[in-house]
Amino acid sequence: MSTENKPYVIGLDLGGTNSVFGIVDANANVVAETSVKTRGHGPVEQYVADCVAALDVIIEQVGGIEKIKAMGIGAPNGNYYTGCIEFAPNLPWGTEVIPLAKMFSEALGIPVAMTNDANAAAIGEMTYGAARGMKNFIMITLGTGVGSGIVCDGKLVYGSDGMAGELGHVVVMRPNGRECGCGRKGCLETYCSATGVARTAREILSTSDAPTLLREIPLDQIESKDISIAASKGDEVAKSIMDFTGRLLGEACADFCCINSPEAFIFFGGLTKAGDLIMDPIRQGYDDNILKCYKGKAKMLISQLDDAKAAVLGASALGWEL
Amino acid sequence: MSTENKPYVIGLDLGGTNSVFGIVDANANVVAETSVKTRGHGPVEQYVADCVAALDVIIEQVGGIEKIKAMGIGAPNGNYYTGCIEFAPNLPWGTEVIPLAKMFSEALGIPVAMTNDANAAAIGEMTYGAARGMKNFIMITLGTGVGSGIVCDGKLVYGSDGMAGELGHVVVMRPNGRECGCGRKGCLETYCSATGVARTAREILSTSDAPTLLREIPLDQIESKDISIAASKGDEVAKSIMDFTGRLLGEACADFCCINSPEAFIFFGGLTKAGDLIMDPIRQGYDDNILKCYKGKAKMLISQLDDAKAAVLGASALGWEL
Repeated sequence: MSTENKPYVIGLDLGGTNSVFGIVDANANVVAETSVKTRGHGPVEQYVADCVAALDVIIEQVGGIEKIKAMGIGAPNGNYYTGCIEFAPNLPWGTEVIPLAKMFSEALGIPVAMTNDANAAAIGEMTYGAARGMKNFIMITLGTGVGSGIVCDGKLVYGSDGMAGELGHVVVMRPNGRECGCGRKGCLETYCSATGVARTAREILSTSDAPTLLREIPLDQIESKDISIAASKGDEVAKSIMDFTGRLLGEACADFCCINSPEAFIFFGGLTKAGDLIMDPIRQGYDDNILKCYKGKAKMLISQLDDAKAAVLGASALGWEL
Repeated sequence: MSTENKPYVIGLDLGGTNSVFGIVDANANVVAETSVKTRGHGPVEQYVADCVAALDVIIEQVGGIEKIKAMGIGAPNGNYYTGCIEFAPNLPWGTEVIPLAKMFSEALGIPVAMTNDANAAAIGEMTYGAARGMKNFIMITLGTGVGSGIVCDGKLVYGSDGMAGELGHVVVMRPNGRECGCGRKGCLETYCSATGVARTAREILSTSDAPTLLREIPLDQIESKDISIAASKGDEVAKSIMDFTGRLLGEACADFCCINSPEAFIFFGGLTKAGDLIMDPIRQGYDDNILKCYKGKAKMLISQLDDAKAAVLGASALGWEL
């Protein structure tokens, strides 16, 4: 990272609710921050204009646009090759293809790159986090869904169309897997996302009468976090849910290893807050199912990026590559 | 490929029975060929000496070693990074790690590279075959086992240890998958290799009494080829076996697409001789299970390399990269 004259990059974490901007230096310090609501701007041109107005304030704080090398955007369905958001159901522009990278680049006069949020997280980890110095690793983000960013020989895997790396939609139960929002069955994210974990809890609670702290919560309101907390108190049912989730995720990682043979898997997201309660079963599921020739090679790590800043850091990291 | 002064490469297809050498030009012509038995040479040093003696004859035929750019070896458990064969159960050197690339390089005085046979096939396809000009594709070899070579952004995926790309050992049935020779359960190759197809036939024939041409063959002698032949004659049971095999392979490819989003899958091996009888169900299984964002993008192709020469061509193609 040549930072002599242009010591900063801008990161934009574009979410369904908020668009969070950070100005970041080469040591992962977010030196200035601002945000705007993602919705309510009318056409996307106005959204960009409103973002740039907010950005101008913090850009001045760090010495003006000439101090900024580039900008990176992490956005759902963000395509690295085209710089467009393609058919993102949770964003206000619906089924349109939005050339957002180009729009910001023209408005700010700096290079702008975009990718999806999980890919941005992987680049963030490689630039500032647990994957520094690694050339082959797989980032797995455990949130409402399961996202992933795959780094192969030092480069993010974008595939033929810029959309590679959707490990959350690899089928891990066949036949008779759980129905997934994507219209298919048995996808990893139906089991190992926060919503998948809550689904497992509801299945177990409604088909057994084992005593558990989780019964204090209305069945349809149980969240992944509640299960982590109960497990940390020694609740056996909650521990069995973490065990099932982690083992299946570990088994899936053993499959992914057959593809890319990474030196590490790096996990990010709420579920990792459970620490060993989730990481131990992940390691167990992996070790019990890994092909002999890969045994003992890959590390299972938790992200080193600060949760609150990880998305902005990840997006900003894209900027250093420009 | 700069072929001005050194117009040829040597390819070695190292199999459990035969070691086949070809001298190949840039247009995939095998201009000279020889082979030695893989076994019966005693120590590996003698094997290399005997190979070089056989090679010297055909090297002279093309004008001497100064016409040869390099050599590529395709071998089971061949590691590209180390140039070693690592613990190959079907080769005479057992559990030893054999630095075969270095040994040939020293004996011949030219650069030598090695990888496993399926990776070599992928490089062969990229150099001479159906994947010319492609930067992202997945080669799947359907033989006694299921092998694979993954090309990502124009480069073979070797992973952190040189051993990536074992798609045959991705688990496609969970739980209750078939036992695999690797000691795990549900691996793709237990269903979609030649042996997997025969296994499906034995399962169906021993649990139903549906009439089929396959009953003319003793149950324990049914081979994948017999099923292709019966299917091509319109035998319903044989067609259902091809259908099951192809659909599952197509579903697995839909999963692999979530990882690398290739522009094509290229299939090689005996099973592809069945043509549309296997390719139609592969396409069907793929189309029915592919994530929306990838729909209609990847082609499903059959290898364009001549079967008899494909392994030597693939190995030789490695030589052009040196």
